[in-house]
Amino acid sequence: MRKVYLSNTPRQEALAKFMAAVEIPRRTETAAVADALGRITAEAVFARFSMPAYHSAAMDGIAVKAEKTFGAADQNPLRLEPDIEYCSINTGEPLPNGFDAVIKVEDIQFLKDKQAEILAPAPPWQYVRAVGEDVVAGELIVPARHCLRPPDLGALLAGGITELELIAKPKAAIIPSGTEIVDPAKKRDKGSIPDFNSTVISSFLQQWGAEPVIRPSVPDDPALIREAITGALEIADLVIVNAGSSAGEKDYTFSVIEELGEVFLHGVATRPGKPTILGKIDQKPVIGLPGYPVSAYLSLEWFVSPLVFRYFGLPLPQREKLNVTLGRRVVSEMGMEEFVRMNVGFVNGRYIANPLTRGAGVTMSLVRADGLLIIPAHSLGYEQDETVELELYRPQAELNCNLLAAGSHDLIIDLLATALKEQDSHYSLSSAHLGSMGGINAVGRGQSHFAGVHLFDPDTEEYNWPYIEKMLPGEKVHLVNLVYRMQGWIVPKGNPDGIKTVNHLAAKKISFINRQKGAGTRVLFDHLLKEANLTSDHIYGYEREEYSHLNVAAAVAAGTARVGLGIKPAAEAFCLDFVPLIEERYDLLMSDPFYNSPESKILLNIIRDPKFQKQVENMGGYNMRDAGKIMEKR
Amino acid sequence: MRKVYLSNTPRQEALAKFMAAVEIPRRTETAAVADALGRITAEAVFARFSMPAYHSAAMDGIAVKAEKTFGAADQNPLRLEPDIEYCSINTGEPLPNGFDAVIKVEDIQFLKDKQAEILAPAPPWQYVRAVGEDVVAGELIVPARHCLRPPDLGALLAGGITELELIAKPKAAIIPSGTEIVDPAKKRDKGSIPDFNSTVISSFLQQWGAEPVIRPSVPDDPALIREAITGALEIADLVIVNAGSSAGEKDYTFSVIEELGEVFLHGVATRPGKPTILGKIDQKPVIGLPGYPVSAYLSLEWFVSPLVFRYFGLPLPQREKLNVTLGRRVVSEMGMEEFVRMNVGFVNGRYIANPLTRGAGVTMSLVRADGLLIIPAHSLGYEQDETVELELYRPQAELNCNLLAAGSHDLIIDLLATALKEQDSHYSLSSAHLGSMGGINAVGRGQSHFAGVHLFDPDTEEYNWPYIEKMLPGEKVHLVNLVYRMQGWIVPKGNPDGIKTVNHLAAKKISFINRQKGAGTRVLFDHLLKEANLTSDHIYGYEREEYSHLNVAAAVAAGTARVGLGIKPAAEAFCLDFVPLIEERYDLLMSDPFYNSPESKILLNIIRDPKFQKQVENMGGYNMRDAGKIMEKR
Repeated sequence: MRKVYLSNTPRQEALAKFMAAVEIPRRTETAAVADALGRITAEAVFARFSMPAYHSAAMDGIAVKAEKTFGAADQNPLRLEPDIEYCSINTGEPLPNGFDAVIKVEDIQFLKDKQAEILAPAPPWQYVRAVGEDVVAGELIVPARHCLRPPDLGALLAGGITELELIAKPKAAIIPSGTEIVDPAKKRDKGSIPDFNSTVISSFLQQWGAEPVIRPSVPDDPALIREAITGALEIADLVIVNAGSSAGEKDYTFSVIEELGEVFLHGVATRPGKPTILGKIDQKPVIGLPGYPVSAYLSLEWFVSPLVFRYFGLPLPQREKLNVTLGRRVVSEMGMEEFVRMNVGFVNGRYIANPLTRGAGVTMSLVRADGLLIIPAHSLGYEQDETVELELYRPQAELNCNLLAAGSHDLIIDLLATALKEQDSHYSLSSAHLGSMGGINAVGRGQSHFAGVHLFDPDTEEYNWPYIEKMLPGEKVHLVNLVYRMQGWIVPKGNPDGIKTVNHLAAKKISFINRQKGAGTRVLFDHLLKEANLTSDHIYGYEREEYSHLNVAAAVAAGTARVGLGIKPAAEAFCLDFVPLIEERYDLLMSDPFYNSPESKILLNIIRDPKFQKQVENMGGYNMRDAGKIMEKR
Repeated sequence: MRKVYLSNTPRQEALAKFMAAVEIPRRTETAAVADALGRITAEAVFARFSMPAYHSAAMDGIAVKAEKTFGAADQNPLRLEPDIEYCSINTGEPLPNGFDAVIKVEDIQFLKDKQAEILAPAPPWQYVRAVGEDVVAGELIVPARHCLRPPDLGALLAGGITELELIAKPKAAIIPSGTEIVDPAKKRDKGSIPDFNSTVISSFLQQWGAEPVIRPSVPDDPALIREAITGALEIADLVIVNAGSSAGEKDYTFSVIEELGEVFLHGVATRPGKPTILGKIDQKPVIGLPGYPVSAYLSLEWFVSPLVFRYFGLPLPQREKLNVTLGRRVVSEMGMEEFVRMNVGFVNGRYIANPLTRGAGVTMSLVRADGLLIIPAHSLGYEQDETVELELYRPQAELNCNLLAAGSHDLIIDLLATALKEQDSHYSLSSAHLGSMGGINAVGRGQSHFAGVHLFDPDTEEYNWPYIEKMLPGEKVHLVNLVYRMQGWIVPKGNPDGIKTVNHLAAKKISFINRQKGAGTRVLFDHLLKEANLTSDHIYGYEREEYSHLNVAAAVAAGTARVGLGIKPAAEAFCLDFVPLIEERYDLLMSDPFYNSPESKILLNIIRDPKFQKQVENMGGYNMRDAGKIMEKR
């Protein structure tokens, strides 16, 4: 029998229920102060000794009896006898018995007979560091629940503390489950999935101060899952099973936890993250995380980090918030709290945010994200240009230096991102793959700094400018060439279908994979069709769209298409063949404020650097003869 | 010959000169992705494989041929034959050959003969996760100079990367120098100083991503220092000598670095931090740090962290800034850039900051500091109530929950700090030791939330309220009792001078250590004098002031005074004897807004908690019979 439906419990309700039902009992451990950086104190620590433990000189000079110096003045120099009336002393040295002040070396004239001449009296305790000036015995050094920083360790050692009681790291066992799961280092067969989730989950737990243990992976077998959980409970304070948390035929996590203990929640009203299980066995929290990476990591943060921080007695860290303007509409389903990963850049005085791919399986959306948009369950989403609040994944200061590239994507944009960071480490570059026309729109609406554009206009036989004139009439923009690149057929090794022209595709009904509307490559393909007097009806697969050259190549490599139109490096990434067709111009369209910014100067310097150009041309299929040249401006 | 004077080079000028003259050559190393959390990439990393590597089901359900489902509708159910027209499939499983869409389980009715009935057609590629949806081969995963976060590791593993090239940690050798330096774990003799600086310096370097190595300590001997530096240069990318960096008789760091290499700077125009040495030997940076802890740590941050971050190609991290109102005047010497550690709290809608002890030797000032006030060289400081900008040591959000206690200090305030944090981990408590009168002033001026007060008024024979009425006429405040405590003579073990009354002190001219003006204990002592018809002239040492009970006890323990007036726990911290004299009332004066805040409720709950009261009374010398009782209010 399949259990088909998950519950739709609101996240905060689920969390409150879980936190009330489970608790990790706090353990403490004794550790050396030198090993305690970043750890949390279990109790308040008071100094055992004073530092300094004796009165000492605060300056290099001489120790004196203050009362013997009274009367010294410019007009009345006083001479002190060595050893009897003064002793030489260096900073930090103990004040010899019977002396109660220090005169600093700059104020002393040493005479030939070693007498020391002074011109001013020393008040008692002048330049003397009193016992306990730094730390005094009995003083509170750090309270309980304190995260130890470098100077804290210094004060502890100064106060005579060499060992202290810390809150022990809670142990978290991670059980990778699923018959398809394999070690990421192993060769990949069809149907196998490398277990990268465990590494990510373990890394998050480490950052939160827990001690993660990745247990051996288990196949989808209830008996083996039961055994794995039971074993993990013996060594850990909490157990995480990833995945099998949904309600599929081979999802056993729910039934095993329910059998061994208690389940508080199966299904949370979020997207992604829905198939989450919260339970407990033997008083220990047991969590079933979804298999999709983004779901798993978000669910981990929602339900496991509060447990860990409460264990330490620390407040849950809050992410920086920022109000941003939406560059695109973001829709959401009523009744589900949605979590959308967003790119953010500071464009023309506004923070502009655009949604990244929303797929729960797209780890790269978390890698690329600058922030997270949380859409409440009761909302249907937001309109373009609306102001929304994001939780930031990067500090706001960094986002001020984050360049937003839109439009058509080329691998060179990635190389630019790296070169930019090398040039000036403050800068970063996020790119949204919107296609050439999407890019022109984004620049026109002030939603990106620049856009990659490669649009052939058959009427004028010119690239890019005719489209810009039509789409952004009167707008002040600059068009700078980046590269000329070969477009061609991406085909299986050896080009088994012998494809040369678009006529071959039509004649042989060869399965084609297209690009999305507005992409320069699609415009080019449509032009080729028109030139050959063909229509989209002649092309098998014309409707199947991918969003990048690499994804087109991936489809050909996977055999789900026999041919696509794209650039050479994409074919090479998949060891496919490339049939060159046409050299096209790929320009960068820049808004006027961006073009006049220091950032664009750095970018253009990189583009015009012969070393960078050589690096690009060495990849093959690229020609940088006009790189950095202003093609048009207005 | 003594070299007496250091240069007064501005800090930024010194840094620029140093950065231009030295460079740590960048090294890289190969590491497993699983070990790379928090490390910095040496180069851009592109995916080797796609993830998923095959078309797979995005939902649990059945795989179908899309074109075979066309026509299915509510009024026209379509039945599909198992194995031929559909296959059962779970999320993540590869799409079998010949199938190109998935129908989710909720939309299927399974009939008795295993036929699957559907009521809607499936468009091609519905619920199919295409090859490369997560990561596509050839795609940029992370750029160079990127600090790796948990999801980055996931994307790398998903993209077939199991090892990558990281920027190696730069090795920093720390040489503790000074004949007086001993291992912190060893017994302390007079004249020895535990080496806690090395641990702090090493911890800071660790936080910045370097690999610190603490070398054996060397005495003040030029030959041995030379040997230590030469040895350290063989294993490290940069060498730090702590200390001997000043210009004293036994300060050899400067001459040794100059002899082996080059010195760019000896003396920077800062306070603290002046005696810093910046040099290089064999092209490697060699830094001489001052011996005073605060000087050493600030100088380390100014001159070593920029080297380390530049090595990684990362921008120097910036501290959060905050505008605050100065609770007290802060003066500064013209020509010196001053660094003042400050307490900060949010009092009555304003961030109020007060300076902590400014001594370069006071590690505790860094432990207690919430922020740093940097006074430029050209400034003479700031007036009370002026607005200044601080660099924060703690996030601003934490400061909103930081209670500022002023006035007289008692150990119970430290216990309250810990109990408060245990009660609600958002809260913290900073206390400024201003004495009772300083505390009344601070509450009156809205510069602290509450203050500890114990002031006896001989005219009315009442505690505290008469002073408050005089100092804060008409002000709306609340006076809550914290404790009754014994004041008495703090004397050496066995009370060798047989002190019982203040008359004994006067008669025998016993060396006394006093408290600062405005302290309740000083008011009490003056009252005792008056009662005995004595004046300050009768007391030997009346002018010597300490700022806390513990520091008074420390002076008696060190033998620089024979008696002080104070509380029992202070005597006990130093194993001294305590001669009880009088029980006094110690109250908390609260401003009206604070008294009505949720924070004060938490505080009062703790004070009224019998468990807390028992903990206090068990220390001895305390009585909590009125703890939490409102003594007066207006």
